[in-house]
Amino acid sequence: MSGAIHELAELLSRLPGVGRRTGVRLAFHLLEASPRYSEQLGEAIGELHRRVKRCSRCGNLDDCDPCGICEDPARDERTICVVAGVPDLWALEESSSFRGRFHVLHGLLSPLDGVGPEDLPLEELRARVEENEVEEVIVATRPSVEGEATAMLIRETLAAGPARVSRIASGVPHGGELEYADRVTLGRALDDRREI
Amino acid sequence: MSGAIHELAELLSRLPGVGRRTGVRLAFHLLEASPRYSEQLGEAIGELHRRVKRCSRCGNLDDCDPCGICEDPARDERTICVVAGVPDLWALEESSSFRGRFHVLHGLLSPLDGVGPEDLPLEELRARVEENEVEEVIVATRPSVEGEATAMLIRETLAAGPARVSRIASGVPHGGELEYADRVTLGRALDDRREI
Repeated sequence: MSGAIHELAELLSRLPGVGRRTGVRLAFHLLEASPRYSEQLGEAIGELHRRVKRCSRCGNLDDCDPCGICEDPARDERTICVVAGVPDLWALEESSSFRGRFHVLHGLLSPLDGVGPEDLPLEELRARVEENEVEEVIVATRPSVEGEATAMLIRETLAAGPARVSRIASGVPHGGELEYADRVTLGRALDDRREI
Repeated sequence: MSGAIHELAELLSRLPGVGRRTGVRLAFHLLEASPRYSEQLGEAIGELHRRVKRCSRCGNLDDCDPCGICEDPARDERTICVVAGVPDLWALEESSSFRGRFHVLHGLLSPLDGVGPEDLPLEELRARVEENEVEEVIVATRPSVEGEATAMLIRETLAAGPARVSRIASGVPHGGELEYADRVTLGRALDDRREI
């Protein structure tokens, strides 16, 4: 049996959601697909860490440092949106609903997982807020124990500064059924009700 | 947003069972995993087509031609097991229940998909049977319309030769429940009953 296929199947099976059988199946799929595709995919994976840089200002991952968002003069630098990770930043960018800058934490406060306040780039956030005369910091961490604790920590960190600290709304999602919403979500939706 | 991550996510999303969201998720997973792992995976994928060869005797895929099984003197060359694809060969090898040689068709007869008798390496099979004085050809294609049609075609192709042509048994799988077996499987299991 081919060592090359075996090795590839083993490496693939370490990916999340890919077991041993799927690893073998993907390896055979690659063999049956065009050699050009395998070359492109292999190169894209092999060069990923070399090509992608972490932005020294906001923590975003991009091909350049500072990242495209930090370098874009059209973005409002008086507003900073704090997110836990780059996938959250992408989701917000795709929604086209925010035109300020970001601050990526690369994690959430989680003492049980060994992530304390000193592991998050909060001092960098405080410095950015002061240097750029930021008016509002929107905390867009997810509504969970860790997300809320992180939001509270950010509020404390920035308490002495000039910026308002706000939190994204939590409630029944657009198109969602009240019937299937959990108790906490419904409670939030009621607490955060607004006049119409 | 990073071109490198975007490109990789797009390439990954072409894999079977991987959509756009999963492609993005896998790309971020690779970024968070060790650079060494991405390098190894990238190299294994990029070199796959260069490293893997199709055996000129049996059609197996291996790092060498002839393949390890064809070159193994301990294997019985008087028995050939015909399989549709290399994954089937691997499954049989893992079961350790066959010690002869293989013949890989890389497909099954399927006129609707444009696969006719001339697209399968049956002339090569006939030649191998004659040259090596093969005594038995076991057709291990799956029990389906295409698998059965291919088995019948092999029987016809080898009818004038010296080898017996047999077919793997079809019935209720080991550990399977009769209650959940489909009608065709139960019919087969009854038809192919044997004295005990």
